Amino acid sequence: MKLTIKRLELRAGRPVALLNERRAAKLNVHIGDRIEVSKGSRKIIAVVDIVKDLLDDLEISLSKETLSYLNAKPGESVEVNLALSPKSTNPILKKLNGQSLTREEIHEIITDIVNNSLTEAEIAYFVSAVYEKGMSLNETIYLTEAMYKTGKKLSWHSSQIVDKHSIGGIPGNRTTPIVVSICAASGVIMPKTSSRAITTAAGTADVMDVICHVNLSPEELKSIVKKTNACLAWGGSLGLAPADDKLIRVERLLNLDPESQLLASILSKKLAVGSKYVLIDIPCGEGAKVSKAEAAKLKSKFIKIAKHFELNIQVVLTKGDQPIGNGIGPILEILDILRVLKQENSPKDLERKALFLASKILEMTGKAKKGKGLQMAKEILYSGAAYAKFNEIIDAQGRKSKPLVPARFRKEIKATKDGRVQKIENKILNKIGRILGSPADKGAGMYIYVHKSDKVSKGDKLITFYSESEKKIKEAIAFYNQNKLIKLS
Amino acid sequence: MKLTIKRLELRAGRPVALLNERRAAKLNVHIGDRIEVSKGSRKIIAVVDIVKDLLDDLEISLSKETLSYLNAKPGESVEVNLALSPKSTNPILKKLNGQSLTREEIHEIITDIVNNSLTEAEIAYFVSAVYEKGMSLNETIYLTEAMYKTGKKLSWHSSQIVDKHSIGGIPGNRTTPIVVSICAASGVIMPKTSSRAITTAAGTADVMDVICHVNLSPEELKSIVKKTNACLAWGGSLGLAPADDKLIRVERLLNLDPESQLLASILSKKLAVGSKYVLIDIPCGEGAKVSKAEAAKLKSKFIKIAKHFELNIQVVLTKGDQPIGNGIGPILEILDILRVLKQENSPKDLERKALFLASKILEMTGKAKKGKGLQMAKEILYSGAAYAKFNEIIDAQGRKSKPLVPARFRKEIKATKDGRVQKIENKILNKIGRILGSPADKGAGMYIYVHKSDKVSKGDKLITFYSESEKKIKEAIAFYNQNKLIKLS
Repeated sequence: MKLTIKRLELRAGRPVALLNERRAAKLNVHIGDRIEVSKGSRKIIAVVDIVKDLLDDLEISLSKETLSYLNAKPGESVEVNLALSPKSTNPILKKLNGQSLTREEIHEIITDIVNNSLTEAEIAYFVSAVYEKGMSLNETIYLTEAMYKTGKKLSWHSSQIVDKHSIGGIPGNRTTPIVVSICAASGVIMPKTSSRAITTAAGTADVMDVICHVNLSPEELKSIVKKTNACLAWGGSLGLAPADDKLIRVERLLNLDPESQLLASILSKKLAVGSKYVLIDIPCGEGAKVSKAEAAKLKSKFIKIAKHFELNIQVVLTKGDQPIGNGIGPILEILDILRVLKQENSPKDLERKALFLASKILEMTGKAKKGKGLQMAKEILYSGAAYAKFNEIIDAQGRKSKPLVPARFRKEIKATKDGRVQKIENKILNKIGRILGSPADKGAGMYIYVHKSDKVSKGDKLITFYSESEKKIKEAIAFYNQNKLIKLS
Repeated sequence: MKLTIKRLELRAGRPVALLNERRAAKLNVHIGDRIEVSKGSRKIIAVVDIVKDLLDDLEISLSKETLSYLNAKPGESVEVNLALSPKSTNPILKKLNGQSLTREEIHEIITDIVNNSLTEAEIAYFVSAVYEKGMSLNETIYLTEAMYKTGKKLSWHSSQIVDKHSIGGIPGNRTTPIVVSICAASGVIMPKTSSRAITTAAGTADVMDVICHVNLSPEELKSIVKKTNACLAWGGSLGLAPADDKLIRVERLLNLDPESQLLASILSKKLAVGSKYVLIDIPCGEGAKVSKAEAAKLKSKFIKIAKHFELNIQVVLTKGDQPIGNGIGPILEILDILRVLKQENSPKDLERKALFLASKILEMTGKAKKGKGLQMAKEILYSGAAYAKFNEIIDAQGRKSKPLVPARFRKEIKATKDGRVQKIENKILNKIGRILGSPADKGAGMYIYVHKSDKVSKGDKLITFYSESEKKIKEAIAFYNQNKLIKLS
């Protein structure tokens, strides 16, 4: 059936089609049903919403994403049909029932995710099936491959393309911008793309977003890397492994992060970005995403999958039992990063870890001899060369002028007794960060004054909460009072 | 923040709020985020879509459901805040991790489903957690109670309120309208509400929908029952156990039907409708939803839960190894029902089963003495009293005038050899029914000419496919050719 597109500026974040209610009845579609909309050879599956007055019987209105995918304009006509139920619901059910999936089945699911043929509820079934039943090494390789092949791919003339990645979960721990600045200053090429937060209060893309533009096109990214050796972009707008962002969006609802999904998510992005060298940081131990034993297993899986795709990989296990740095939340973390780069009141734990990771990259790419990487990294940081490189990258991406001020509602938490810090619970910190509004509210989050083993006296500041709303501060305090965040001996 | 409602006739089937993109940025909400919209003491959670031209900075547009829930009109103002993440995601995650849920946690989840605080993806996580991990008897009782208490409840003066239910899964098997007509003619009160299809090609509500109005208000339902002793309504529009319809919508995506959900779905509706007597039909055996052994276990759970709620219950196990009746799909099934009621070329298997179920109800309510129910049911059917009662109910609900004609595209499938029918696969039949467009397309479905043990000769008609589209007929044939629907010895 041919319908004419009516202009309605609807940006739904997903393919949505509005139909007049009589037309919907004739097509036998109901709210939430899927229709296939095609123009020429392009075809997209959209979800139906029904309107009464806005459209007449022979009109359709499409969300912006849908229009741009179809390359269609208001006034043009499109062909509309009831969409058949996507075939990939069969392998999803198969996985939910505990069976292994073939390469073809995994490709089918990921293709349907990328095409928007699966609803978020169907994707949630897939995520929970993988969370419950796990994936074999082969399935994880297929998943990585499917995620990488269904998106764009960057290619480079140089072979010294390097990437680093932390599996996350540790509050603060924002080493990437520092590592990239040091390594790029040494001449290594790092087209770094990062994600937004999954389970923590901020991801590297959330943090960079407060200081410069991170939504780059592949062309912009390439020209910035050509100019500066590096970038610090958000991966989501590049179309690299696009299934991953949709999966993450659904995983976030329950803060799930199944292992095979984590492996595929990281490695598919590295492959799509054209990396040849990859450094993976697995923070482990009490309070981290994984224990030391799990980290060792994960390391071996990373190495096996990377080998399959002929990536040079190095995996380091780091201590993940407490936050790294003092700030938690986008603005509070960028302030920490600037302190390290400017060497003004630098949070030493963050600096140490960034230097360590940079040293590994400098050695694996041959920029430094074995055992000399740390010294080289220090020289680059302490000389100001890393900070200069950081500014170069920020300016190339487009610096934002908004002042870096933490949120206006604040609450200081003080020690109620003398003692020594025995424990700081990462998961509770992440949860409080989210209650305070981070990462959506850029200035929301926390500043932590103490680390493990620090001695504190009654009345000493332990932590300050920041939020854009008093209601959230109250919620955070209520949650803090119910949960042991910092344990004093 | 106060925003003014702008009229836009948006019927989204769920609470949706449109915001101007600048306003959304100021509120720090993104597409798909949830906001809390309140007016006076009424409060609803809505999902955000973002528009550019339709609204100005201080306007909001709300879907019809949201407006009517808030009792708000265009031009009035509402208070808008970012909604906090619903607390019930915690117990959902707990269940996904295999832990039991408390009464309070289950009530929290169901309340959030009813309030639209959970997205379909979050509901899918809950469904898959229950599908994977199961629920204890106590959890199932809590689920039943929560589903029943979060909705409307009908009450009656009489205590002889009866309901029947089949757990479904068998193609055809449309006994309900016949049983209700027989029992109501005997003086029993049956305010019957039915669901639409979950895994089969049609549900009783889909079938009744082709002959009369089934979307009744509680007041309409009561007045129809007062007049005729019975009704044959769709349960979804009545607000009885409203969580159930949302759960079913999400379950349908993968055709899941976890046991505890099935128990709670059935019994919560019976409790909400005010039933005192309940007859449950569990079709079992090869090709049915459950085996005979599983049916026996399910029976014992039905009895235990019913006892907890002081319901008089009887559970019968019936043969579920092949379709019952000849027609499959809304119009094709109503034609079978009319043949039984009019006693014109009646499909004998359907007639026998309806008489058996009616006899049980007549005996359990004391209308017939033990052992005399079947005789009484036959008298009512054969005398035409059941058909008269059926017409009375249809007229009271509002008869539809559309002719009952199966879909226009048809394909006959014939036997390719002589033999005896050994097997008819219910699940493949259901699947083909859905491929053909049933239940959305009322005339779509199949007519089956054979039953198990029938002798057929090469060239005999086995089955006719009906669909509103040639594409679907082709799809159905392709699926038929890949799968063994009818096995001849």
